[in-house]
Amino acid sequence: MSEQREKTTIVLFSGDMDKAMAAFIIANGAAAYDQDVTIFFTFWGLNALRKEEHVPVNKGFLEKAFAKMMPKGPSKMGLSKMNFGGLGPKMIDHVIKKHNAMSLPQLVELAKEQGVKLVACTMTMDLLGLQKEELIDGIDLGGVAAYLGDANDANVNLFI
Amino acid sequence: MSEQREKTTIVLFSGDMDKAMAAFIIANGAAAYDQDVTIFFTFWGLNALRKEEHVPVNKGFLEKAFAKMMPKGPSKMGLSKMNFGGLGPKMIDHVIKKHNAMSLPQLVELAKEQGVKLVACTMTMDLLGLQKEELIDGIDLGGVAAYLGDANDANVNLFI
Amino acid sequence: MSEQREKTTIVLFSGDMDKAMAAFIIANGAAAYDQDVTIFFTFWGLNALRKEEHVPVNKGFLEKAFAKMMPKGPSKMGLSKMNFGGLGPKMIDHVIKKHNAMSLPQLVELAKEQGVKLVACTMTMDLLGLQKEELIDGIDLGGVAAYLGDANDANVNLFI
Repeated sequence: MSEQREKTTIVLFSGDMDKAMAAFIIANGAAAYDQDVTIFFTFWGLNALRKEEHVPVNKGFLEKAFAKMMPKGPSKMGLSKMNFGGLGPKMIDHVIKKHNAMSLPQLVELAKEQGVKLVACTMTMDLLGLQKEELIDGIDLGGVAAYLGDANDANVNLFI
Repeated sequence: MSEQREKTTIVLFSGDMDKAMAAFIIANGAAAYDQDVTIFFTFWGLNALRKEEHVPVNKGFLEKAFAKMMPKGPSKMGLSKMNFGGLGPKMIDHVIKKHNAMSLPQLVELAKEQGVKLVACTMTMDLLGLQKEELIDGIDLGGVAAYLGDANDANVNLFI
Repeated sequence: MSEQREKTTIVLFSGDMDKAMAAFIIANGAAAYDQDVTIFFTFWGLNALRKEEHVPVNKGFLEKAFAKMMPKGPSKMGLSKMNFGGLGPKMIDHVIKKHNAMSLPQLVELAKEQGVKLVACTMTMDLLGLQKEELIDGIDLGGVAAYLGDANDANVNLFI
């Protein structure tokens, strides 16, 4: 009796550590309940998929500037509130460890392990000059059409 | 003919007065149309449930710092735009009175009266060191599993 | 065989250029797939519907102040991140042109051409003192009841 699996989609627009945490906590929770889960990373959210190390790729001037100014991966992202020049994320990381909760990089890893589909928005990659080699492995690339296809089948659709 | 009631869920992540107002206006509207409505308060959104008065509870150093820096209840929250060091919220409160609209604390009261389910995210309470005694009465406590259960049955799910 | 058209609703709360772009890209994509799409412009999002030119209307002092401080239309909006006093939007506009992508004002035009329903939140208009004459032509006015009616019939509901 193949009951259809429930679906959840999340657009992660934000490049803030706290909002990305919320997105991955919901995504991992839904995946744990055996749902199909997709996160679309668009605009600043794409930074959560960047590799931490520098990847040598050819870029124009503006693209280099964007790459330099934007956080390289989840461990470099700031808070949407009380960032205090980077002190806020350290405070959050401290209480996360204290309470045995998961940090953002750990949440990203868990999502990959659980089969959460991670889709990088190709339009944003073009605009900000981010190339596939600069993003972590095991992700998909897609546009708004791919998102809409998934979202229309889903019970829960969030924009974060 | 027991037709099933429509459901709406809102995740209130934001600690901004204007975003909280939007959340409560939608929630109260849906409740007025006899829908089941749940608001999950997570991260900075949890501040909308804090009591205004100081509640003496034991806390660690970081938890005290968080408690001090975050707004105590809806009447202390700032705007996401044009906050101007607290002048913006005063301007908004002024036009709200002028137009006989409801202020955020009044919207919270109305939500409780209408039976909107207000759920404080237990993980956030742990991380930020907020204790049940510091939150207003008549709310529920829950985690991401509770949220997902409600959201999958709902027609409208928003992340604010 | 009249299959019902799928519906998408978006609440555009944000007055940021990048978030408004995301809203319109999703809306235009859904409309291209022949869906019924509605965008509700509330709070700062309403600025995306303002005419660029000054419209002489009678206003109180606070309403004049709001009108002056808020961006007049999509081409005046700033970025949610890396705004750099207006340099960020110029950088984005530059890469948009370079990649033959659409600017926010073009996305708004396309949405109107495709029949996306653009609804200005009347409560926000009251609060911020924006009058119908100050908003672009071809839009609807509505409140939270209108939004809830549309959202309950929709597959995809986003708050941006």
